Amino acid sequence: MTDALQDTHSYMLELGRRARSVAATLALASTRQKNDALLAAAAHIDADRAHILAANLRDVEQAKARQLPTARIERLVLTDARIDGIIAGLRQVANLDDPVGAVDGMRTRPNGLKIGKMRVPLGVIGIIYESRPNVTADAAALCLKSGNACILRGGSEARESNAALAKCLYAGLRDAGLPESAVQVVETTDRAAVDTLVTMSDYVDVIIPRGGKGLIKRISEQARVPVIKHLDGNCHMYVDETADLALAEKVAINAKCYRYGICGALETLLIDVRVAERFLPVIAKAFAEREVSLRGCERSRAIVSGLEAATEDDWATEYLGPILAVRIVDGLDDAMAHINRYGSQHTDAIISTDINRIQHFMAGVDSSSVVANAPTCFADGFEYGLGAEIGISTGKLHARGPVGLEGLTSQKYIVFGQGQCRG
Amino acid sequence: MTDALQDTHSYMLELGRRARSVAATLALASTRQKNDALLAAAAHIDADRAHILAANLRDVEQAKARQLPTARIERLVLTDARIDGIIAGLRQVANLDDPVGAVDGMRTRPNGLKIGKMRVPLGVIGIIYESRPNVTADAAALCLKSGNACILRGGSEARESNAALAKCLYAGLRDAGLPESAVQVVETTDRAAVDTLVTMSDYVDVIIPRGGKGLIKRISEQARVPVIKHLDGNCHMYVDETADLALAEKVAINAKCYRYGICGALETLLIDVRVAERFLPVIAKAFAEREVSLRGCERSRAIVSGLEAATEDDWATEYLGPILAVRIVDGLDDAMAHINRYGSQHTDAIISTDINRIQHFMAGVDSSSVVANAPTCFADGFEYGLGAEIGISTGKLHARGPVGLEGLTSQKYIVFGQGQCRG
Repeated sequence: MTDALQDTHSYMLELGRRARSVAATLALASTRQKNDALLAAAAHIDADRAHILAANLRDVEQAKARQLPTARIERLVLTDARIDGIIAGLRQVANLDDPVGAVDGMRTRPNGLKIGKMRVPLGVIGIIYESRPNVTADAAALCLKSGNACILRGGSEARESNAALAKCLYAGLRDAGLPESAVQVVETTDRAAVDTLVTMSDYVDVIIPRGGKGLIKRISEQARVPVIKHLDGNCHMYVDETADLALAEKVAINAKCYRYGICGALETLLIDVRVAERFLPVIAKAFAEREVSLRGCERSRAIVSGLEAATEDDWATEYLGPILAVRIVDGLDDAMAHINRYGSQHTDAIISTDINRIQHFMAGVDSSSVVANAPTCFADGFEYGLGAEIGISTGKLHARGPVGLEGLTSQKYIVFGQGQCRG
Repeated sequence: MTDALQDTHSYMLELGRRARSVAATLALASTRQKNDALLAAAAHIDADRAHILAANLRDVEQAKARQLPTARIERLVLTDARIDGIIAGLRQVANLDDPVGAVDGMRTRPNGLKIGKMRVPLGVIGIIYESRPNVTADAAALCLKSGNACILRGGSEARESNAALAKCLYAGLRDAGLPESAVQVVETTDRAAVDTLVTMSDYVDVIIPRGGKGLIKRISEQARVPVIKHLDGNCHMYVDETADLALAEKVAINAKCYRYGICGALETLLIDVRVAERFLPVIAKAFAEREVSLRGCERSRAIVSGLEAATEDDWATEYLGPILAVRIVDGLDDAMAHINRYGSQHTDAIISTDINRIQHFMAGVDSSSVVANAPTCFADGFEYGLGAEIGISTGKLHARGPVGLEGLTSQKYIVFGQGQCRG
């Protein structure tokens, strides 16, 4: 290693040691203390607006000088309204139920042992994210409320904004009598910091990357620490022969057009061949009016003339834009086979009035959310009532689907005896 | 890659493809079908005893010729009684409740969407184990009952025994009309098979290694698939100043002496300084009578003369034998700090009559099981009432502690709407 690399490596290990050293304190922190810290941090951010906006302006100017893409600069910009949003977010997390300490499934064994499961923090969470500075406050709040220490590594273009927000978070922790190292914002912009963060398994219990697919893929490949991740959102909707077609039309349009860029947006529409002649012309017209272009299979193109042909690649593509793939399938099992083959295990929907078909679909489609008679774009922690969301997991272990406070915790067995012995 | 390596690699990928291709069928298999397969496999094993014992004899002779250690040969040997045990195990798993399809937490959102979580199989599970051939049947049974396809890679010394058992498992699956590839026993003894198995993340959802620490460490370092693992069982018992000392003595002896070699065996005894002068001489005598040798801290040695001195290494050692480390601590927080520093997050106990201290210990000790007034050796899936156990997990994500059928499943969100739209 070069000296600079060695310095970054040592710096990250030191952050890890500090985080680990306060984890036990955080696990025992009261709900009141954690809420006090969140509310105090919100107050500090409110009082420090001028500094935060000035720091953000420096980041934005730097980003413009570096000629970053407009969309990335747009995500970076803080305004008074966005700061209001950050403050509201912290207060909202303070209002959520504390997941830590809940005991489930306590039961008595024949020998009198009482055994149950207690919800506990994971310990230390590393979060790696891109330009939006609000993630600094949002992620810190969720980790703190769930009793975890966190190490936050933001994008280099948001360095000054993140540092200004971090100062307020640290002050909030101090005010509440909690250790400042509960939240640590990585100060170096050296990319080697990430290499160390995702491999220091003695100090970090889980990594949550938030950002583009490239970032997440790179981190997953490198990590020696478990990663809660979300790669693609290639979402499907299957219109069954028993579907209410008016409902199917309304839901399909919402699923595609609510927002093109979200991971729950509809990317492939599957239509049972038995209703295709009735449904496809109607939905094709509706999408045409909304300037969504369709790419269809051979059978679709025989029904609606002028459709662009879908290729094998289209079935596997998350467009995140005004394009929709359409395929006619031979019933439920064919639709499920298509989804399990090409889908990304994110969110998939069935439109049907037949409860047996819906249940078959729900049991057999291997995705983090399966939906009946509603659009895939509902896949979201707030919409699901989790109160907050750190991300959506398309992995199967631990948290799956939208991840809220509970996803940042684990359960351990607790056993109460009165001197029982084994054997 | 050499040709031989390439062959092994291709062979394993083919097993992976087959497993993945039947996962959806297994997820939809009825409880009845899965139980029928288990009971039929049990009947085939019963009918095939002669072949299985003959195959095992060939393995044992080979192992003797290779001069494997006696303990390893002992684990390899099948007898009629052990085959009875395997058959009973299959029937027992058939009797357990099917975890698949259970729906939790269904609730209605303000917009009328009904959202809950459905328990579903993980998909494909890879199990890597050492010499005991009974694991072949046990692991296959648990994976099948939880709706998962599995790829089983046993120790090379048990190759013929495992193949003979596999034949009966395949026959059971066929009898029940389930795909034979639901269970696949790896036929090559090439170690490169493991390298492929733990990295083929397209086909395998989780790896469960069962065996010595060396095996598990190597697999964890190599794996690109999530691993449910158990490394050390360095278990502690803390005797609080409020402890019932007669109970503490009985429980400490059971925790150490029930069986030295299990992962829940007691390895370090921590005693509050306030009761050390009363408790330590008594427990030291009791262990001396049982030929367990103690290694004590300075303060322990001042109370009981002739104690061997414990070194820093002793605190971190899982003896798995008739040795016990003893340390006098300054109360509850000191004990917890010792456990969180030196422990292996397996199972740790407190002996106390004070509920507040017990709760503090349970919340603050970061282990997969925390126990009050009972020995650590109870850490076991059967003792916890899980009905079966595939292993004990000391990781924090997903399954933690003894892992039964539920640990081999995941949950997905299910959402029922009536045409609601977002925004």
